[in-house]
Amino acid sequence: MAIKMYDLAGAEVNRRFSPYCWRIKLALKLKGLDFDTIPWRLTEKAEIARYRSERVPVIVDNGRAIADSWTIANYLEDTYPDRPLLFGGEPGRALARFYNQWTDVTLQGAIGPIVVADILTHLDARDRDYFRTTREARLGTTLETLETHRDSYLSALQQVLEPLRQTLAGQPYLAGNTPHYHDFIVFGAFQWARSISGARLVQATDPIDFWRQRLLDAFDGFARSAPGYW
Amino acid sequence: MAIKMYDLAGAEVNRRFSPYCWRIKLALKLKGLDFDTIPWRLTEKAEIARYRSERVPVIVDNGRAIADSWTIANYLEDTYPDRPLLFGGEPGRALARFYNQWTDVTLQGAIGPIVVADILTHLDARDRDYFRTTREARLGTTLETLETHRDSYLSALQQVLEPLRQTLAGQPYLAGNTPHYHDFIVFGAFQWARSISGARLVQATDPIDFWRQRLLDAFDGFARSAPGYW
Repeated sequence: MAIKMYDLAGAEVNRRFSPYCWRIKLALKLKGLDFDTIPWRLTEKAEIARYRSERVPVIVDNGRAIADSWTIANYLEDTYPDRPLLFGGEPGRALARFYNQWTDVTLQGAIGPIVVADILTHLDARDRDYFRTTREARLGTTLETLETHRDSYLSALQQVLEPLRQTLAGQPYLAGNTPHYHDFIVFGAFQWARSISGARLVQATDPIDFWRQRLLDAFDGFARSAPGYW
Repeated sequence: MAIKMYDLAGAEVNRRFSPYCWRIKLALKLKGLDFDTIPWRLTEKAEIARYRSERVPVIVDNGRAIADSWTIANYLEDTYPDRPLLFGGEPGRALARFYNQWTDVTLQGAIGPIVVADILTHLDARDRDYFRTTREARLGTTLETLETHRDSYLSALQQVLEPLRQTLAGQPYLAGNTPHYHDFIVFGAFQWARSISGARLVQATDPIDFWRQRLLDAFDGFARSAPGYW
């Protein structure tokens, strides 16, 4: 039976923009596991309360529910060890942790102010008030104010991206010649931005963009087929 | 025959403060290879010109010279594959590259302004003019100006360290339960600071400091036995 995965959607049901959900969708693809996504909106907390989570991704596999992208990735690796490895063994799994925290805190923290106002315009009407209130509280300013400073956030992002750029100038994937979960963690952040904002985070001549194009093409163009701007 | 390694020294011959040299000294320790260091000063470029390098570390192993920390680490892994692995196999080696670039650019970039004025006071007299001129040109300001802003640089560093902190709150080493080259890359930056500056970059209650203490203790306290402030 196919794995069921709750996946954050916008007003258009096919616009899937959670960076954490993208990590897991690509992990499921690498493992070659069948899955069906269930579109979920930010305010549908009741829908997943029975799985003891307030956020997506949540997967249900053979009646077992697992929440949180890191927990899910580990579950998939441990439950399906005979399929292609997400982490490439040890110490690859432990080494993925810093990629995870760097992406959550530093990378997504730098992308957030650039795209957050665009998220609002793509949200389902039910989610907009909730989104504006929680995000403006978290960011300490209005979404419109952030938008007026987009150029300076884009420029600050280029600094944050420099180590990634230098790394990908020398090798096709973060994990070497083939992509692993480490790549999906970081790629998820770009897929988040691509889904909801026309702001091009990296130019087409950037080694980061070459890597991004390779991952957009992976698994028969799975990530590229999702609605996106660039 | 023991490996020979050129190692950056201050006015005191035992004050060894190059973060890149620390990476390699710990790599040699993990491999269990005998080595002797040769103290080297910044202006002694003629000493290592025959090895086609202007910087340390440079190692000489059985008459072969290898320069640049990343190149040396790869040389050691490939030349001594039967000894403990620095990268933990593939994809560990490829995954180390981002740790390397993040440390070079982001982490050391954030630590530099905090410690650079203290480096000057520890340098051999011959190196001081060279150091001040090149560093002030690179940083675009005087060393004394940087020092007056130390508190704001220390505070900015805490942001940069957050993903590292979250990672090390969950596991003893970046590479898992035992240290690998990934750990040495990042630790080298802390050892650089410890050698030449009393500015404590992380508090003793920080998960980063617990990890740092473990690495100071490793290999019979090898890193701890070097002159340092904290």
